[in-house]
Amino acid sequence: MTASMQELAAQLPEGVLVTDEATTEAYRFDSASSCPAGRPLGVVRPTTTEQVQAVLRWATRHRVPVVPQGARTGLSGAANAVDGALLLSLVRMDRILAVDEVDQVAVVQPGVVNADLSRAVADVGLFYPPDPSSWEMSTIGGNLATNAGGLCCVKYGVTADFVRGLEVVLADGEVVRTGRRTAKGVAGYDLTRLVVGSEGTLGVITEATLALRPAPEPALTMAAVFDRTTDAMTAVTRIMASGLRPSLMEFLDRASLRAIQAYRDMGLPVDAEAMLITQSDRGPLAASDVAAMGAICAEFGAAEVAVAEDAAESAMLLQARRLVGPAVEELGVTLVDDVAVPRARLVDLLLGMEKITADTGVLVVCPGHIGDGNMHPTVVFERGNEGAAARAQEAFDAIMRLALDLGGTITGEHGVGVLKRAWLREELGETSYGLQRQIKEVFDPLGILNPGKVL
Amino acid sequence: MTASMQELAAQLPEGVLVTDEATTEAYRFDSASSCPAGRPLGVVRPTTTEQVQAVLRWATRHRVPVVPQGARTGLSGAANAVDGALLLSLVRMDRILAVDEVDQVAVVQPGVVNADLSRAVADVGLFYPPDPSSWEMSTIGGNLATNAGGLCCVKYGVTADFVRGLEVVLADGEVVRTGRRTAKGVAGYDLTRLVVGSEGTLGVITEATLALRPAPEPALTMAAVFDRTTDAMTAVTRIMASGLRPSLMEFLDRASLRAIQAYRDMGLPVDAEAMLITQSDRGPLAASDVAAMGAICAEFGAAEVAVAEDAAESAMLLQARRLVGPAVEELGVTLVDDVAVPRARLVDLLLGMEKITADTGVLVVCPGHIGDGNMHPTVVFERGNEGAAARAQEAFDAIMRLALDLGGTITGEHGVGVLKRAWLREELGETSYGLQRQIKEVFDPLGILNPGKVL
Repeated sequence: MTASMQELAAQLPEGVLVTDEATTEAYRFDSASSCPAGRPLGVVRPTTTEQVQAVLRWATRHRVPVVPQGARTGLSGAANAVDGALLLSLVRMDRILAVDEVDQVAVVQPGVVNADLSRAVADVGLFYPPDPSSWEMSTIGGNLATNAGGLCCVKYGVTADFVRGLEVVLADGEVVRTGRRTAKGVAGYDLTRLVVGSEGTLGVITEATLALRPAPEPALTMAAVFDRTTDAMTAVTRIMASGLRPSLMEFLDRASLRAIQAYRDMGLPVDAEAMLITQSDRGPLAASDVAAMGAICAEFGAAEVAVAEDAAESAMLLQARRLVGPAVEELGVTLVDDVAVPRARLVDLLLGMEKITADTGVLVVCPGHIGDGNMHPTVVFERGNEGAAARAQEAFDAIMRLALDLGGTITGEHGVGVLKRAWLREELGETSYGLQRQIKEVFDPLGILNPGKVL
Repeated sequence: MTASMQELAAQLPEGVLVTDEATTEAYRFDSASSCPAGRPLGVVRPTTTEQVQAVLRWATRHRVPVVPQGARTGLSGAANAVDGALLLSLVRMDRILAVDEVDQVAVVQPGVVNADLSRAVADVGLFYPPDPSSWEMSTIGGNLATNAGGLCCVKYGVTADFVRGLEVVLADGEVVRTGRRTAKGVAGYDLTRLVVGSEGTLGVITEATLALRPAPEPALTMAAVFDRTTDAMTAVTRIMASGLRPSLMEFLDRASLRAIQAYRDMGLPVDAEAMLITQSDRGPLAASDVAAMGAICAEFGAAEVAVAEDAAESAMLLQARRLVGPAVEELGVTLVDDVAVPRARLVDLLLGMEKITADTGVLVVCPGHIGDGNMHPTVVFERGNEGAAARAQEAFDAIMRLALDLGGTITGEHGVGVLKRAWLREELGETSYGLQRQIKEVFDPLGILNPGKVL
């Protein structure tokens, strides 16, 4: 251990700093399989804000890069190691500090797993909506850092919509509290929303005050099977324009249906071109809601419309949707895209992707949170085949170009990380990019916080 | 006209720049009656983004302060003139550029009046929730600049929650587009939320993409009359903890009831200590919702609970609530406070204010958006009485101190402006204040954008 690392170790309780090869290696990557990662100095797993402060004071003194990490389930390489960095894992700061039913807030440490919080608040009749696919593993801190989305967003919004205030340790080790506990507040600039989604490049979140809602009624589920994908997309636009408010609206294309069915027999219609899954959670109104959604699907060409008879059948459909990630991983190396377009442009996105697939000859599997226009076209290629990898990258880039041309974004919920860093400037334009770089310098003048990510 | 003003006039169409005394005087103040205003150079009322750019390029060149203005209905002096400034009124940029039913967004210029937008989207079955009391007059640009609240917030959130993206002219005349049109997007830092609520100190909003929702069902209204204010506050906390989701939850204290009744006979119970007005807009569920809210009020000591029989009776109750502003103005000079506290601390806020009232001997009228813990204790004093004015200021400051001590904020929705500038640092703390000052310098290095406001 170098002298500077010994200095750090001396400031932390036994076991917080780990430098052995096996542990360090285990923390090098998040879940973006194709993104590069550097060689870190070690891993710190603090249990208090004061320890995080000590780490950042030390990092500032020695100009050592720090990479904040949650459960490393991210898909853009934002939590990947960089050379010579200290990995700062927040997973041991995992306490739910308060759940308040009157103010409908929870105060949590960053290492709390999303599902643990969701269950804890459900126990008192409350609801924390953000539900990224990783929710059984991912931490609130990681969800905040990436402004994670999920299946609920179409009705309830994203992680940022449920954040009232933060405790953040800055690059120099100072602590700042942003936002508030109250339902409303407009004192000064919104630093909370600036830090949320900044992927660990502006500060380290050590506590969050989250807004909760009363628990909704159990949802009813509808599934519609289409012979033509364009019909499914038209149905989506008609459902959304109808005034119905689905609490979930997911899409699986044929390749997704086949991948899931090959991974586990869920009885999915593998010859269909597309399947829509929608829900309503409006209690006594849910049955008429899903019937109305089904009627729209039938009107616009669905070959089959089925309403789940009970909670078990609903859960099965959702489980199928949630399996698409691991199912597609079985097919080869994946480049998971995360574009979002205005809903009215979904058909154009689809037609454009068909052309890209034809031009590059790659396999694209395309599930998506279609109610939000947020799709995950996933380019799959054979491991170790360099030509295939190059064509995959070409298709991946072409899909982002297409999304921007359609008035969309390169990332709806996964973030920029290292995966899309080269594309960020393209989306933002020079003026916005310049402002963002200057904001980064305000928060992190030495550039030690997660360098090489986002900007 | 000075040479530099002639230079500006030459760059703008006839009539955009006005320097006559009467017009200039008419634009000097917003609606914070007690805040000072300086002597401006003139008023520009541009009709295009290009004209706003020309104004800011000129202002940068000549180091002239610029004060952006909407309808000047604000209550914190944020739109008040400063000496030697150009007043930049956006009211003539008043076009609704698009309303999209599939994407549920509206694209508007900043001068669109809130009520005009609300009605335009209602015509196609959509809903723009933010409804500050000034909604019949105030502009979307002003609502965005102050992150305006309103009566709907308890269920639907504030202005910021309905902003997807902005076009902003920066201090140097450059245009930047922030955010997006899509439902989700996480590319880069959230500049949209940074500009919203910044009260014209970071840039001039020239276009906004706003999120809409399907129109809710017409609301049912309940009113409960209490002999003891603490009972009303307990009922609020029980209703909110019950899982009910009122779409409105307003409070009027005895002084408010009497002021309104003196202003216009609305048949209000002037001997009651407090009245709660709540709504539910859940269609077929609304009747049981308001009945449940009423039952809670009765359980916690309401002397009378009434459910409005029809829309006219509901509208009457809401109208009474909306009259409190003008009614209180009749009583004397007002200092309108805007504190928010956690709901569980409302009783402590009330008891603390009673002590402040007793200590200072001032009249405090206290209506509020109680479901959000956001109260408007309004200190009233006699015009021209300096001793009374000093005691009023003392009470006003003591209320802010109290809100902070209770874990609340000095401003729930009215903003900082000049009215609360001296208090902002107290709420934010030095570290946050310092970051915000540096962010201001990134956007406005010469300090020409609404100087002397907020920070």
